[in-house]
Amino acid sequence: MNLILLEERDFTEPNRVRLDGRRLRHIRDVHRAMPGDELRVGAIGGKIGRGRVERYDDDALEMDVILDAEPPAPLPLRLILALPRPKVLNRTIAAAVSMGIREIDIINSWRVDKSYWKSPRVSQDNFRLQSILGLEQAGDTILPDIRMHRLFSPFVRETLPDMLVNRMKLLADPTGEAEFPRRISEPVLLAIGPEGGFIDREIATFREHGFTVASLGPRILRVETALACLVGRMF
Amino acid sequence: MNLILLEERDFTEPNRVRLDGRRLRHIRDVHRAMPGDELRVGAIGGKIGRGRVERYDDDALEMDVILDAEPPAPLPLRLILALPRPKVLNRTIAAAVSMGIREIDIINSWRVDKSYWKSPRVSQDNFRLQSILGLEQAGDTILPDIRMHRLFSPFVRETLPDMLVNRMKLLADPTGEAEFPRRISEPVLLAIGPEGGFIDREIATFREHGFTVASLGPRILRVETALACLVGRMF
Repeated sequence: MNLILLEERDFTEPNRVRLDGRRLRHIRDVHRAMPGDELRVGAIGGKIGRGRVERYDDDALEMDVILDAEPPAPLPLRLILALPRPKVLNRTIAAAVSMGIREIDIINSWRVDKSYWKSPRVSQDNFRLQSILGLEQAGDTILPDIRMHRLFSPFVRETLPDMLVNRMKLLADPTGEAEFPRRISEPVLLAIGPEGGFIDREIATFREHGFTVASLGPRILRVETALACLVGRMF
Repeated sequence: MNLILLEERDFTEPNRVRLDGRRLRHIRDVHRAMPGDELRVGAIGGKIGRGRVERYDDDALEMDVILDAEPPAPLPLRLILALPRPKVLNRTIAAAVSMGIREIDIINSWRVDKSYWKSPRVSQDNFRLQSILGLEQAGDTILPDIRMHRLFSPFVRETLPDMLVNRMKLLADPTGEAEFPRRISEPVLLAIGPEGGFIDREIATFREHGFTVASLGPRILRVETALACLVGRMF
């Protein structure tokens, strides 16, 4: 937790917050903060700054906060992600958000195990929690927009067309004929398939919509590793 | 498991192996392979190729294997890693190995929690298991060399000097004055600190040994995310 995220309901006065639960325990047990100590804080959806611990007991902690700086800039990257195993999904969302990705479309694909869609982790509540972990890690405050598309064809027909405009469109696949571009400045729409990859018909569909199929090389990486590699390479 | 790794003791004849335990279950339950099916295989420390499932029962599986191709090339990157939390260490080793890192020196530093060194995960047996998971993911066969250095000063005095020759030396830290270089061809020695970073005195020590302190930007990333970002950027 490199930044303590503040929710609207935490504010008892314009510059004072009262925290309990997970954040209280973290500040006490990990930061081991004492009254007078300063910590990095940020308001969800808003600015970042400093909080000074004023009061403390077993139930709650009060901080005076000054929020005077902008959170770090987002990445110009919109992610289309075939639903991975739920445990991997958690890590991938937190990692994506920590790197500054603010738009994620989770889609179905032929090789996505149908049972994954039934996991309690595939829910907006869990996406929000994983996103908060990513924001706290990175020192950011802006929650991403995460959408679910349980059917591939309606997603392609109804949602994808509006995502294409003015973006470089890349699909990551070991069979890709292109190398991933480096150091690009224009916005990117990046599609990453499931374990085992998109099937040929799905890849053809993405191609028809202007995607270039690019490869990271002969090594097959886990989705969260591949995503971070690609972000480091492209931005 | 994108590659079934074969150990020497698996071979019952020069081109035949007998597998049980974790690999048998994986081939049966995840690949759902049937006799006649072919799978990617590789001999630990050796070549990769194809195995054809010949026989199958509840206890073991036999495959005829042809090993005729080289595993993917390693990354020209040697990693110095301040010991992270044991759970994070597991993921970081598997991710590093999947990306082709074959030399990892795990070191102590001021901000490494001393209890981490007592974890059963900080052992060569566990490093080997995590490495195998990384190799199976990536389709590689070469185990990395992972060394532990429980004291910072003796590591710097006795081990570090021999690692410096003919390598670009980089330390990843948010305070870094340099940007990370892109697309480099020479070998790299990369040092990554603990959560909270190396302390000033440790950073000064690395500088004295020729390291450039470079930053990935204002976002603070988890070690496995930062490492993958850096690999994608530099290679």
